Amino acid sequence: MKMGNTQYRSIWVEGSAVRIIDQTRLPHEFCIITLDSLAQAATAIRDMWVRGAPLIGATAAYGMAIGMREDASDAGLQRAHDVLMQTRPTAVNLRWALEDMLAHLAPLAPADRAAAAMARAAAVADDDVAINASIGDHGLSVIRDIAARKAGPVNILTHCNAGWLATVDWGTATAPIYKAHQAGIAVHVWVDETRPRNQGAHLTAWEMASHGIAHHLIVDNAGGHLMQHGQVDMVIVGTDRTTARGDVCNKIGTYLKALAAHDNNVPFYVALPSPTIDWRVQDGVREIPIEERGGDEVSFVQGKLADGSVTRLRISPEATPAANPAFDVTPARLVTGLITERGICPATAEGLAAMFPERVGS
Amino acid sequence: MKMGNTQYRSIWVEGSAVRIIDQTRLPHEFCIITLDSLAQAATAIRDMWVRGAPLIGATAAYGMAIGMREDASDAGLQRAHDVLMQTRPTAVNLRWALEDMLAHLAPLAPADRAAAAMARAAAVADDDVAINASIGDHGLSVIRDIAARKAGPVNILTHCNAGWLATVDWGTATAPIYKAHQAGIAVHVWVDETRPRNQGAHLTAWEMASHGIAHHLIVDNAGGHLMQHGQVDMVIVGTDRTTARGDVCNKIGTYLKALAAHDNNVPFYVALPSPTIDWRVQDGVREIPIEERGGDEVSFVQGKLADGSVTRLRISPEATPAANPAFDVTPARLVTGLITERGICPATAEGLAAMFPERVGS
Repeated sequence: MKMGNTQYRSIWVEGSAVRIIDQTRLPHEFCIITLDSLAQAATAIRDMWVRGAPLIGATAAYGMAIGMREDASDAGLQRAHDVLMQTRPTAVNLRWALEDMLAHLAPLAPADRAAAAMARAAAVADDDVAINASIGDHGLSVIRDIAARKAGPVNILTHCNAGWLATVDWGTATAPIYKAHQAGIAVHVWVDETRPRNQGAHLTAWEMASHGIAHHLIVDNAGGHLMQHGQVDMVIVGTDRTTARGDVCNKIGTYLKALAAHDNNVPFYVALPSPTIDWRVQDGVREIPIEERGGDEVSFVQGKLADGSVTRLRISPEATPAANPAFDVTPARLVTGLITERGICPATAEGLAAMFPERVGS
Repeated sequence: MKMGNTQYRSIWVEGSAVRIIDQTRLPHEFCIITLDSLAQAATAIRDMWVRGAPLIGATAAYGMAIGMREDASDAGLQRAHDVLMQTRPTAVNLRWALEDMLAHLAPLAPADRAAAAMARAAAVADDDVAINASIGDHGLSVIRDIAARKAGPVNILTHCNAGWLATVDWGTATAPIYKAHQAGIAVHVWVDETRPRNQGAHLTAWEMASHGIAHHLIVDNAGGHLMQHGQVDMVIVGTDRTTARGDVCNKIGTYLKALAAHDNNVPFYVALPSPTIDWRVQDGVREIPIEERGGDEVSFVQGKLADGSVTRLRISPEATPAANPAFDVTPARLVTGLITERGICPATAEGLAAMFPERVGS
């Protein structure tokens, strides 16, 4: 999507250079980094210069390609795979992309691997863009329907960053928003700041400001009040994992917004690429273990000082411990619909099975 | 309540000196200030060295007393009233305390006013302490019942700071917690940080740490998840204004916690001194105007840097505007009970009328 007048992806190739945006410096600095070694690609993933499951997958694929430039032997191929795999061991897309690259490259002669790897990585990236564009087109129909029924902009609330920065382009939750903007529909986005890591304030707000989409930053506490007063027409969020019956695991606080949407008859949609559906899990609240992260993410906040430097400060007493569950589960009963690359389906076992019949039980 | 081994009120007299805690410097610095002039008392209220409706009222009363030391003439009396009234014009307790002091002092000879004013201010403060202690005793019965039914500590979630720092002592929402702690019941408090102004992280966490009550700071997003997993036994919050049918206006985000409590069968209690009931208002969502505060409270966060200095930093892009509704309304249907100084009543018109028959329609 756009940064000013320039169109970007979150990872791209210029000549033979693989480039990314250092997302740890957003929104205060816009820094482009050229990944010029396997080691640096690994650092980019491990230190979260790039984040978001689809972008991690694409960066890993390009990391393999860069590794093939350094050492395209069988040992070099395995080493590139192993180095990248260790960066964020629990990321499903990371493993999937690395296994795909390894399977694709292993049968080739070492001399052919570097070029083939670049082409395969580009395909991984393009596939992600295509999936998200489809999610955007399906979600656009919902926004279009709302716009037809009301005067003024369609007010959309989103939580965390399921934006183009988390994918290769379009994003998941943001894809319908960008598509609506492109179609000339007036949209206005309520951006939840999304404590503790503030991905909304840091990344989603930056995306909206950069692309020129009307928006306001709000605290995570504000959405219920706005819904009570008719100021939210729909909610769209992303998801890290969706169960076979439609329970949605997403950033902590999503559940509270879903409750408020339900209480105020505001449609609550979840945008997801189908690979994030976990067909083996039914009851998300009971079955999905929730990551408990370090308390410092709660006790400290990062931002920019008046002198322009970026730092963190402590908001709480030193004697106060913090608890930090990173995700929560929104029960399917609170979800109006799941926006997938194939279309929108109800958040039910039947709805998902009808949309993805070949995947059931997989 | 306690700060280490020392018992404090939020405003107190030593000899003839009126002392307060500069709450703008909490939790990072504990500074006691002696109010030695009318002008300084006014500054203390206007610049929010003291905050919380009951404490503002008590500080205004003491401010009048200090003013009488400077000029006890009729003109001086009126001037003290007027200077203090302008500090926070919308604070109901401020007006009430100043009118009470004026009515009490005006009939007296100027020579008698200074001493009488100190005595009257002490009575205002003591009345607040008595009301909150009663709220604490009634709320204690709820905590005691929960403790009797379970092993381990009673887990109580609270939002914002309705603590002793917001009153003269005990607090409203915290009074039952302090009473339970005093009674030897094990309690553990989930402290919502309460964005945007972080009164939970700054003040409630400091109160709990200082008094030695087990607690964890959490982001405002976390409460729903904790309730889904049985980690919250009850919620207690304060209120700025309660309607005649039991709708509760309180700090933004309270409504989201009430929805989550309702969805998980967690008791949701509101602690309130009866003067905060607005008997002329029924439907809180429709009738109570919500203050929209400046966006900088959202875009900037205050805290302590590694070098110990306290400052603020920006969390969002400069091109991103912020919206900042300061309160929301929790409908009575989500409230388990109202804990008042007379006892606990249902959040209904009938429940409130039965508890305060003489006030109905006032």
